Amino acid sequence: MAPSRFDPNFTHHVLDTIGPKCTDRNREVIGSLITHIHDWARETELSVDEWMTGLKFVNSIGQASTPTRNEGHRMCDIIGLESLVDEIAHKLVTEGNMAPTSSSILGPFWSPDAPFRELGGSIIQDPAPGCQPAFFHGKVKDMVTGKGIPNAIFDIWQASANGKYDFQDPENQTPNNLRGKFRTDANGEYYFYALKPTAYSLPTDGPAGVLLKLLDRHPMRPAHIHLMISHDDYIPVTTQIFPKDDPYLATDTVYAVKDDLVIDFTPREGDPKAKLDLEYSVTLARKDYEPAAGEAVLPPTSQTTIGLEPRL
Amino acid sequence: MAPSRFDPNFTHHVLDTIGPKCTDRNREVIGSLITHIHDWARETELSVDEWMTGLKFVNSIGQASTPTRNEGHRMCDIIGLESLVDEIAHKLVTEGNMAPTSSSILGPFWSPDAPFRELGGSIIQDPAPGCQPAFFHGKVKDMVTGKGIPNAIFDIWQASANGKYDFQDPENQTPNNLRGKFRTDANGEYYFYALKPTAYSLPTDGPAGVLLKLLDRHPMRPAHIHLMISHDDYIPVTTQIFPKDDPYLATDTVYAVKDDLVIDFTPREGDPKAKLDLEYSVTLARKDYEPAAGEAVLPPTSQTTIGLEPRL
Repeated sequence: MAPSRFDPNFTHHVLDTIGPKCTDRNREVIGSLITHIHDWARETELSVDEWMTGLKFVNSIGQASTPTRNEGHRMCDIIGLESLVDEIAHKLVTEGNMAPTSSSILGPFWSPDAPFRELGGSIIQDPAPGCQPAFFHGKVKDMVTGKGIPNAIFDIWQASANGKYDFQDPENQTPNNLRGKFRTDANGEYYFYALKPTAYSLPTDGPAGVLLKLLDRHPMRPAHIHLMISHDDYIPVTTQIFPKDDPYLATDTVYAVKDDLVIDFTPREGDPKAKLDLEYSVTLARKDYEPAAGEAVLPPTSQTTIGLEPRL
Repeated sequence: MAPSRFDPNFTHHVLDTIGPKCTDRNREVIGSLITHIHDWARETELSVDEWMTGLKFVNSIGQASTPTRNEGHRMCDIIGLESLVDEIAHKLVTEGNMAPTSSSILGPFWSPDAPFRELGGSIIQDPAPGCQPAFFHGKVKDMVTGKGIPNAIFDIWQASANGKYDFQDPENQTPNNLRGKFRTDANGEYYFYALKPTAYSLPTDGPAGVLLKLLDRHPMRPAHIHLMISHDDYIPVTTQIFPKDDPYLATDTVYAVKDDLVIDFTPREGDPKAKLDLEYSVTLARKDYEPAAGEAVLPPTSQTTIGLEPRL
């Protein structure tokens, strides 16, 4: 707790009212949050009307949320909290040369309902004006051996050329447009058609838009493709990949870009279905991988073991 | 920012995206809040599922709020934030002997619509089973001269014997039951009938109840009467008073009790309208009061100048 000219016992008193049946972890996490909120109020000498403005803002977050709009999730994203939690969950303190593919945030648009599709197929159900189909291919590889991992699940989702996901855009997109799961073949390879992604604005007609405007920040996400790759024997990865020619890479409004996630589309010849090509491979670490001393320390938990519910 | 094993530049990067048109105060207040939230996540190594639980909880706050239920306000109260903001706004660094009546939190039940009533009248429109009427009298006094202040507005509101305020309880209470404004007489005195207040539980069927249960805390507020006293020439005070025999004084779930706000009801003889008596006087400081060196420093702003909107 920071020193201040205010009652030095107030926060202690509030924490002291937590009862004996509170779990140790709830006491730690919620107690720390209460302490930080108190320190914030004291350090900024928060005024009554600033506080009232803030509490109305908090109420507005839930009131703007619907079954297809999770404004609480979006608010966490624009203050960097989801990216930070992702870093904490997947921190690799690595001294060695090996590392699995970096993770990035899930975002609010993943769906548990995406269908399995055939290798060589397409996730483009509803081609939009101006969309740029691309042949997307690569391998899911073992971090240690470099060999392909057969039967891994490669789950992909992306926005359409208008910057909207299927359930934000029912007038133009059928359910599961630009979503799909693929199983890698005997060589650990996957290949299918998707779109070169398009940069888009977060919705600005809700509380997130209010906050971005207050902070004089743009609402743009760089173009990206969402990926979630899993296999029973490997630590799964949820990530995003970003075309290197995007102007918003350095100022992504949700702070999800990492250097090794920047990719390059190249021209593709002789394919009537796509004029662009993307080769991108993913590296996974086995769940039973034991790092040598000073080497990679793998994240303790697997992201896909939790109950993900991006829809409210 | 606290040191940690995580990316030391992440929070700086988020703060650096705040644009040049952001006001200095918004940059300070919102930037500090973002920093504290990041530090909290790093210090507790917040997990993905804890974060997801939290964001659903934030959404639930607004979703549980209605025109007569402000769950965001209640949430601030049970973590002590409203009491802390009240302390910050009204801090008196006093070395002298004089001080105005202490403030306490407004709470979510004040109404701008309370009617003016005649001195000697009653705020009890709908007597409830078990209620204990009391004759409430006293003086609004100048902090320096000790003289009564005529024509001050004495605004009072309280819960009924069932622990509910009028707009929480339309089946038993008519609008403005147990609310009223009085003007002090030529001597600065007020007198009317009200109830000895009753301890009550905050509503526990919403997010505040979830949090209190997680923290193993009781939901009880000690019995109290809300007061808001104002006069054009004086710094107004919003406060609460608490009967000294209440068992929840030390563990008020919104942390609003201060020593000088604890009062004593005494028996009253020969009044068919009330068997209890409460004498309680209020001290106000003039807006133009200039403290001597080392003496009371008065709060810079007046609480009633802001737009109070306890109803959403």
